[in-house]
Amino acid sequence: VTVELAQERLAEAVAAVTPPDDALLAAARDALDRKTKPRGSLGRLEELAVRVAAIRGSLTPEPLRPAVVVAAADHGVAAEGVSAYPQEVTRQMLATFAAGGAAICVLSRSAGVRLVVVDAGVAEPFAHPDVRALRLGPGTANAARGPAMSREQALQAIGHGVEVADELAGDGVDVVALGEMGIGNTTSAAAVTCALLGRAPAEVSGPGTGLDEAGVARKRDVVARMLAHNRPDPADPLGVLAAVGGFEIGLLAGVALGTAKHHGIVVLDGFISSAAALVAARLAPAANAYFVAAHLSPEPGHAAVLDALGLAPLLELELRLGEGTGAALALPLVAAARAVLVEMATFADAGVTDTGR
Amino acid sequence: VTVELAQERLAEAVAAVTPPDDALLAAARDALDRKTKPRGSLGRLEELAVRVAAIRGSLTPEPLRPAVVVAAADHGVAAEGVSAYPQEVTRQMLATFAAGGAAICVLSRSAGVRLVVVDAGVAEPFAHPDVRALRLGPGTANAARGPAMSREQALQAIGHGVEVADELAGDGVDVVALGEMGIGNTTSAAAVTCALLGRAPAEVSGPGTGLDEAGVARKRDVVARMLAHNRPDPADPLGVLAAVGGFEIGLLAGVALGTAKHHGIVVLDGFISSAAALVAARLAPAANAYFVAAHLSPEPGHAAVLDALGLAPLLELELRLGEGTGAALALPLVAAARAVLVEMATFADAGVTDTGR
Repeated sequence: VTVELAQERLAEAVAAVTPPDDALLAAARDALDRKTKPRGSLGRLEELAVRVAAIRGSLTPEPLRPAVVVAAADHGVAAEGVSAYPQEVTRQMLATFAAGGAAICVLSRSAGVRLVVVDAGVAEPFAHPDVRALRLGPGTANAARGPAMSREQALQAIGHGVEVADELAGDGVDVVALGEMGIGNTTSAAAVTCALLGRAPAEVSGPGTGLDEAGVARKRDVVARMLAHNRPDPADPLGVLAAVGGFEIGLLAGVALGTAKHHGIVVLDGFISSAAALVAARLAPAANAYFVAAHLSPEPGHAAVLDALGLAPLLELELRLGEGTGAALALPLVAAARAVLVEMATFADAGVTDTGR
Repeated sequence: VTVELAQERLAEAVAAVTPPDDALLAAARDALDRKTKPRGSLGRLEELAVRVAAIRGSLTPEPLRPAVVVAAADHGVAAEGVSAYPQEVTRQMLATFAAGGAAICVLSRSAGVRLVVVDAGVAEPFAHPDVRALRLGPGTANAARGPAMSREQALQAIGHGVEVADELAGDGVDVVALGEMGIGNTTSAAAVTCALLGRAPAEVSGPGTGLDEAGVARKRDVVARMLAHNRPDPADPLGVLAAVGGFEIGLLAGVALGTAKHHGIVVLDGFISSAAALVAARLAPAANAYFVAAHLSPEPGHAAVLDALGLAPLLELELRLGEGTGAALALPLVAAARAVLVEMATFADAGVTDTGR
């Protein structure tokens, strides 16, 4: 993919993201109010059902066909000692995704959902028939000392993600759960969040996969240096991604954009995938309405990003693994919300007395 | 079933409930710590996996085979105007369960789970091949004016529930989600909760399916009258059930007991099913360790009961429908927890660097 083509594709994808059919929101609420249950008694499942109707553009959407996309990449900033794990674990986990033994493999199987594994740029390539190689390079550069990647690489990462979303949509997939793996990527996500939301590093830097207090302090300082060196402009999301982001973050931003373009549901996982969705929403504000927050991670930056996106998490299970695990766990709730909207009998159908409560 | 047989069966069921194998708790935690993920990073899913191992008595339990049991019954106390819906709605909803159009039918199908519908004593019987008739009478008596049922009926209700659990276990079912339907049954559950936990009616009386403030005040007064008339003894759970409970509450207490007896997992739904589980735990304290709380209802009594049972809910979706809907929505999480325990690769298997974090 040439830079020009990537630039063109991004402009096309951004232009093609149109808002969901909000006229269906009220109609879906009305349809739910006629179902045999007290008004609103299915709580947040009803809110989700209303969103599904608007996104899918129908009061009777077809059964959903979900997939999980997990993108792995390495981060040059890992050299600053910001993770409890060494960098080679990214590639080891990519191999574990391919072998089917990682948490996201198990949870995807448990939910009966297709898993797409992408190498967006792990330091050492891992060739495997079940790994989609969409590599932007052997990991990003160390963003504490300069930009993580070029603007061209950022464009191409997003373009690759849009391409994956296009292919999934072509296969009939209409719900995409975002997952990621990359040693050091909570640091990159923290820097992206600070840059786009004007947050201080201390507000969004947490233990990630298991830093101790001194480790978190070091990470906070590294995030501050990433911002000081690169001075990313919050009005330029592509520039933010290039300066302090990651290849998998860019790729997932593209998957989010592309899925929104096809009127699919984008299920966010934890802090990193949500930061990717934030990049997508800054590029194409209409994409935001296609996002569903699966869960709330204890990583402090996650709440900041979900707040900026106006999303409330469905689950609070203290998950902090990433890989798309929380998103995979939320997929049955999305399926259930659709089923309630489409399959439940109305008071009139069922001959049940409706007191309007 | 004669009263003597019911008494005998209850004594047998209580004696047969033995604690889960707590030696497996530590072994399951250790097994999870060897999986390819930072220690504890699957949060509350790991706690659930540990409980599943102990309950099923194995570090590698077989795939779970869940069922939902929804029991319907009428409550004489409905005559006191404690519900936003008229009493005939219980039978109408029983018909909707049989027809497959109710929320619990839709959610059971969505989760791929068998649904067992029981008439435990609706005012007007509803004969249907898909409704199991285990009727204790045409609804309970008005507990604001005397006991809801005789001690014999309470015994038989529990006996019926144990019988249903025995049959399910015979079919290989090892996870049972509890659901209920009964106009007025949050009032009965509130009275049971007050009697067993020494709570004041105001602490556990809420809007149920949609009472306004005046309705909640009336309900609170009715609960106080139920307790004043019957003076149930907190040390006599069977007496509490007879005095102020309901047929479906007794039946579900029996299902909980019987499932615990077979080392199955009992998934509680909202306030009423949890009050039934509380009755079971007071009859057989060892049963408590087999219970999983699916969700937290906004009905104020629910938190009180879960607190007494020492359970933390998996979901907080503001569900207040009952029928087992929250329990059905939590079943995929239980399946996922088992899958993580059994199917994930270890650091050693996968050749992933383990830093012990």
